[in-house]
Amino acid sequence: MNNDRRKFLRRIAVGGGLLATGLPSFASIAATDEEIERSASLEKGKQRFNMCGYAAPKIATVRIAVIGLGQRGSDAVERLSYIDGAVIVALCDKYPDRVVAAQKTLEKMGRPKAKEYSGEEGWKAVCESNDIDLVYTPTPWHLHTPIAVYAMKHGKHAAIEVPGAKTIDECWELVETSEKTKQHCMMLENCCYDFFELLTLNMARQGLFGEVLHAEGAYIHDLSKDWLFNKNAYADMWRLKENIGRNGSLYPTHGLGPVAQCMNINRGDQLDHLVSMSTNDFSLNTMAKELAVKDDFFKDYTDKPYRGNMNTTLVRTHKGKTIMIQHDVSTIRPYSRIHLISGTKGAAQKWPGPERIAFGHSWIKKEELDNLYKKYSPPIVNHIGAIAKDVGGHGGMDFIMDWRLIDCLRNGLPLDLDVYDAAAWSAITPLSERSVAKKSRTVDIPDFTRGAWSSNKPVDLTLDGGGNTGVIKPQKTELKQ
Amino acid sequence: MNNDRRKFLRRIAVGGGLLATGLPSFASIAATDEEIERSASLEKGKQRFNMCGYAAPKIATVRIAVIGLGQRGSDAVERLSYIDGAVIVALCDKYPDRVVAAQKTLEKMGRPKAKEYSGEEGWKAVCESNDIDLVYTPTPWHLHTPIAVYAMKHGKHAAIEVPGAKTIDECWELVETSEKTKQHCMMLENCCYDFFELLTLNMARQGLFGEVLHAEGAYIHDLSKDWLFNKNAYADMWRLKENIGRNGSLYPTHGLGPVAQCMNINRGDQLDHLVSMSTNDFSLNTMAKELAVKDDFFKDYTDKPYRGNMNTTLVRTHKGKTIMIQHDVSTIRPYSRIHLISGTKGAAQKWPGPERIAFGHSWIKKEELDNLYKKYSPPIVNHIGAIAKDVGGHGGMDFIMDWRLIDCLRNGLPLDLDVYDAAAWSAITPLSERSVAKKSRTVDIPDFTRGAWSSNKPVDLTLDGGGNTGVIKPQKTELKQ
Repeated sequence: MNNDRRKFLRRIAVGGGLLATGLPSFASIAATDEEIERSASLEKGKQRFNMCGYAAPKIATVRIAVIGLGQRGSDAVERLSYIDGAVIVALCDKYPDRVVAAQKTLEKMGRPKAKEYSGEEGWKAVCESNDIDLVYTPTPWHLHTPIAVYAMKHGKHAAIEVPGAKTIDECWELVETSEKTKQHCMMLENCCYDFFELLTLNMARQGLFGEVLHAEGAYIHDLSKDWLFNKNAYADMWRLKENIGRNGSLYPTHGLGPVAQCMNINRGDQLDHLVSMSTNDFSLNTMAKELAVKDDFFKDYTDKPYRGNMNTTLVRTHKGKTIMIQHDVSTIRPYSRIHLISGTKGAAQKWPGPERIAFGHSWIKKEELDNLYKKYSPPIVNHIGAIAKDVGGHGGMDFIMDWRLIDCLRNGLPLDLDVYDAAAWSAITPLSERSVAKKSRTVDIPDFTRGAWSSNKPVDLTLDGGGNTGVIKPQKTELKQ
Repeated sequence: MNNDRRKFLRRIAVGGGLLATGLPSFASIAATDEEIERSASLEKGKQRFNMCGYAAPKIATVRIAVIGLGQRGSDAVERLSYIDGAVIVALCDKYPDRVVAAQKTLEKMGRPKAKEYSGEEGWKAVCESNDIDLVYTPTPWHLHTPIAVYAMKHGKHAAIEVPGAKTIDECWELVETSEKTKQHCMMLENCCYDFFELLTLNMARQGLFGEVLHAEGAYIHDLSKDWLFNKNAYADMWRLKENIGRNGSLYPTHGLGPVAQCMNINRGDQLDHLVSMSTNDFSLNTMAKELAVKDDFFKDYTDKPYRGNMNTTLVRTHKGKTIMIQHDVSTIRPYSRIHLISGTKGAAQKWPGPERIAFGHSWIKKEELDNLYKKYSPPIVNHIGAIAKDVGGHGGMDFIMDWRLIDCLRNGLPLDLDVYDAAAWSAITPLSERSVAKKSRTVDIPDFTRGAWSSNKPVDLTLDGGGNTGVIKPQKTELKQ
């Protein structure tokens, strides 16, 4: 467990509680036959407007509303406060005390006070207001799409935490709304901005791995005891509930996002179909029963249809490449997102550590890797990487992501992560659930770009046209997560 | 590349040529509908006799015939010569000069001269002779089942290289013949005898990983330039030809075997169904074309339907556990068999190195791993491991396997690897080909034990009843591969 994670965990245990807003019933959201039909019909239509590469009008100072002020959201308030040219003008959570706490963060950071919104539907009032450019949404999963759609419909750009959508219908809703309104919809896939991931992305782009024909990503992170079953971690146990009655790849984007970028998915290639397989549950129900012996609270969580511990999903692309995605948050393994890139000229793998790269049958030495970092880290790392490490947030990647988002909006640049990425990466969940429910049968993946993938341009790794967004140098180390 | 491998490669390059006997046409052997029907009908029948746990009559001195004296076979002649209580009485290859060379090995080892057999059908005469107990067969893949079946029908035990069978029909032929004749049929899956694999097998048996719910194995080993396209490596390019027209997990057993043992497959659990996905070929045809520019010989190998570089196969067991198996012999990655074990109490992973074990969220330290080796290496390692490292053969595992096979036969003990293992593990290939050919559709895996898996006992990790087979201490280091 790294330092960030340990501190994060301590804060959770002490501070407790995340946003809970209108918790739905948690049950399978496997793509149904009807949904697949609706999707196929939408896919056959013509793309309304191509949001890939879309440059929205410049915004000199980006006025931000942060909706959802639990752990993830309150961290975001702090991080965004370091960015010059961005100002948090609205804070929203179901619970007013969280809004008050976030105001204190703004005050500590020497930032102006924001408008306060709270209550079950506070987020609607936020989206309806006239003084906001970007709605930034680190809420529980089920609110990502509703809030993003409502925000875009009211003329705001939307940034939503992962996963961006829970169902195929929601994926299309994001796409249709973004295309109709010409508002950006970015899924905040922070792992795309981690250092090794950015290095390998740039190396892949430069052709150093040759043709990247296979890749692997994962979210293997034991959340069971300290998170899922921690009464103080997620309001009304929402995240544990997500693991009941659903069985598939529930959290694919941390693993898939970075490798999908290396393979130019939606921008030269396209996810075509998948198969998905889950184990049974061998730990969650056992843990619920153990906890229920000492605490009646957990009796409601025994004998539930928990998801299988390990899910493995295989995706094939239009060009005949494959991606393996794994998900396991409930067995006692060391953390891994794998991040494996396999090409005709080289390979890279991040987990299990150390980070490694090969151009032959042996992994290169540490010194050679250091040299590659120097030579091939993309401009954004040299520009903002050091300060991002100071600000913190999963080692810096969260801040690189935030800064890049604001810099693009300020300079009218296309975003690195567009609505098609949000839709395609998030779609893995309901499609994998469908596959698992049908004994791992093959399931087609919708083309949310409706054909535009073949001519869309890869993510821009330069800072051309931007890079002029300043940062307020962090001073208060006690604020770092 | 380790030392063994480097030496091996040098010998190949200098010595050249492996056995070639009646090369078939190399084309898809994907399980057909008719084969699946035949298999289902056999599966419904009653097991004739349970060869799992079968103790054959003791054989004081095991008389061995080695058929196939290419690289792998001539190494086996040397290794087997170290075992007291075993004597090689017959040497057979299509090519007489290889037989002569193997005789020289026996002479150097101070062993008696063996009978010589050669020619296209020399192996039939071997099987028909009356002075042989065990037919040991390191031939090209397509001869494994025909020779094993013919040997068993003529009252010999059969030991065959991997893969044991190429088709589902062949898998059943092995099972039916072994049950009818009560002759052992062991697939020489040497990776089951590697040190970390034996350690984790014993630890799994002792419950140290809790319930093992997911595992991974692989054969990721770039054979393309130095092996598949090396004119001196495999007679008549048979191994390259195996990669033409077939598309699936062509060589699953090195990865699957060791983890299948950890999960008690065929002995408490059972492989139930699989899905399999391959990439396109991004390197083999390119390499053929590059070589053909300088050497007309390779023109016959251009524009062939080469198998996809990477195949990933997911298997689900009867008890709801999963196994991921990968196969890639044609991209430039470092070697890996993965060997990952994921349980409710711990995890282990061998590749990418170093070997690692965890009982929590961090991998344990090297010293702790050393202690586990001391405490949990099974008796066979303490008994024969050190000398096996001296003899060599992929670091010692080949010799541990050979010694254990001979010791079991001499003492009338059941074999660790029986005909059901040979069939179930080999069946992955034609079933994965079927899945790949049908867009990764789900394919059921036959139960070759016909229900006996639920009561079969796990592999015996003691040396009880055996361990009395001596070894001639190796002296000539120049003989080691």
